[in-house]
Amino acid sequence: MGVNMLRVRTLVRLTLLAAAFFLTALPALSKDALPSWNEGPAKQAVLKFVEEATKKGGPSFVPPEDRIAVFDNDGTLWAERPLPVQAYFAFAQVKELAPQHPDWKTKKPFKFVLDGDAKALEAMPEGEVAALMAATHAGMTEEAFEQEVQAFLSAWKHPVYKVGCGGLVYKPMVELLDHLRANGFKLFICTGGGIEFVRQVAPKIYGIPPEQVIGSSLKYQYQEGAGGGSIVRQPAMNLVTDGPGKPVGIQLHIGRRPLLSAGNSDGDLQMLEFTSGRKGPTLEILVHHDDAQREFTYDKGAEKAFSEAANSGWTVVDIKRDWKTIFAADQK
Amino acid sequence: MGVNMLRVRTLVRLTLLAAAFFLTALPALSKDALPSWNEGPAKQAVLKFVEEATKKGGPSFVPPEDRIAVFDNDGTLWAERPLPVQAYFAFAQVKELAPQHPDWKTKKPFKFVLDGDAKALEAMPEGEVAALMAATHAGMTEEAFEQEVQAFLSAWKHPVYKVGCGGLVYKPMVELLDHLRANGFKLFICTGGGIEFVRQVAPKIYGIPPEQVIGSSLKYQYQEGAGGGSIVRQPAMNLVTDGPGKPVGIQLHIGRRPLLSAGNSDGDLQMLEFTSGRKGPTLEILVHHDDAQREFTYDKGAEKAFSEAANSGWTVVDIKRDWKTIFAADQK
Repeated sequence: MGVNMLRVRTLVRLTLLAAAFFLTALPALSKDALPSWNEGPAKQAVLKFVEEATKKGGPSFVPPEDRIAVFDNDGTLWAERPLPVQAYFAFAQVKELAPQHPDWKTKKPFKFVLDGDAKALEAMPEGEVAALMAATHAGMTEEAFEQEVQAFLSAWKHPVYKVGCGGLVYKPMVELLDHLRANGFKLFICTGGGIEFVRQVAPKIYGIPPEQVIGSSLKYQYQEGAGGGSIVRQPAMNLVTDGPGKPVGIQLHIGRRPLLSAGNSDGDLQMLEFTSGRKGPTLEILVHHDDAQREFTYDKGAEKAFSEAANSGWTVVDIKRDWKTIFAADQK
Repeated sequence: MGVNMLRVRTLVRLTLLAAAFFLTALPALSKDALPSWNEGPAKQAVLKFVEEATKKGGPSFVPPEDRIAVFDNDGTLWAERPLPVQAYFAFAQVKELAPQHPDWKTKKPFKFVLDGDAKALEAMPEGEVAALMAATHAGMTEEAFEQEVQAFLSAWKHPVYKVGCGGLVYKPMVELLDHLRANGFKLFICTGGGIEFVRQVAPKIYGIPPEQVIGSSLKYQYQEGAGGGSIVRQPAMNLVTDGPGKPVGIQLHIGRRPLLSAGNSDGDLQMLEFTSGRKGPTLEILVHHDDAQREFTYDKGAEKAFSEAANSGWTVVDIKRDWKTIFAADQK
């Protein structure tokens, strides 16, 4: 072999080695994974947890198949005030269907909607929300329902922010979803809202596919017919994934305790507790709406969750302190 | 730049080009994806469907997020004769619990189990199977149930083949699962059997994670308590994913029609129909148990499915004709 050939081979090897080095070193050279988070205990807790769970051979290593992360939606991944997006959809449906239901003029909760009684609507107990859902979201095929949701969302604007539903998404949480995904986590939503409603937006705004959305559901009936039959939505609840219904939904859809879960209210308390019962490391995140200037301030309906968070050392995210930016478009 | 340096650079480029070429060409050089399948219409239909669904720019291209494939389990992915594996588990549970239930000695279907009445057990209607499941699989936490399943399966042997449950898996179907996975399909099981029972085996024998198993379920209740609370299994059915219950389960867990589904009986008919209703290309597969020598022969309870397959051009897999090998270990 001539000297030139030897040199060439050495250079080829060095080039390949250099390429391998740069490819391997890329993650280490990458920028801040959570740029919309201020430095502080919440950001640190999240980054440290992910680092330890993915550190091969480390004492807290979790194999990829067990890296299950579950997020509440309303108030955790996107804004829920003055009312959750789906409530506006249900109201639009009530108004559309009202001529066929003259009794709604005097019947709660339909009356509140038709009267535009915002206070009564905001204070509506869960049972009435379910009644509203059952009455307005049922009696049609899945495909027809999905079309109605899409038609509604393409025109809807938030009453305060004047943006579409994509504009309500919390930028820091999308960064967290991306960071978890990049580290081999499989992401699920467990919403108290309607499963099929959230499935219509989750792929686009969170990159979460429909099969990784858990939520409240109506009873379904399969109706045979030409063209492959249809799923027809029945006017009765199948499962309400709020409070103790969240671990039930997680068991049914995922089949084991999550490694990480995040919520913002007492409706998420049992999900966070259920997560904490997993053998090995876990992370429980509670978003605290304490920023009246940039978002909304409210603690009502989250008292038990914050008390449990303090007792159990869960990670509280104070929006005011921990989030540099709140919305992707920073519309407020 | 000297001539040597130029040569070196050219060689480095050529080396990298060659490496890129070999990496790109690898799939084309790969071996038969379905080696346990005989050449014939079934194998051809499957390979052609996958090729067309994944051909970018082709008329039948399906984006990866819609490549959903759903498989029945008993009789489709593993042998179900003389009885499905879970039936043997339920029988073992009945025998274990019998001393606490003296009435079972005279009460159907428990009486059949305690008497060892194989004929009555094989002819058991669905409602009695559900009663058996509810009585023997309930009243305990999820974790306790999973331990019982694991303990049972670690000792159980098939009465004819004398193998554990892993030995019942159809090798050609595992090759199909692998081929679909390699082509970006997301695989689900939709079993008429118990969701938590099949979740205990699916990751190991099919490489399908628990959250991609749909099946019949009991009602769950979340019970608060120290250590993160528990899911307690209630003695009542939540959903029976058989017949029209299969599209219902698919809608609930996946949220859209599959691109491909496979079954072997009338219990899979509605799932296959539901699949065929998807806009764009679909593949419906029906496994035909016609090989008395190497497996079992039975058409009973699959008459409607085979009639519909003939009418609709579904892909029928005749075990005798289409499968070179049936079991991984070829135990018979």
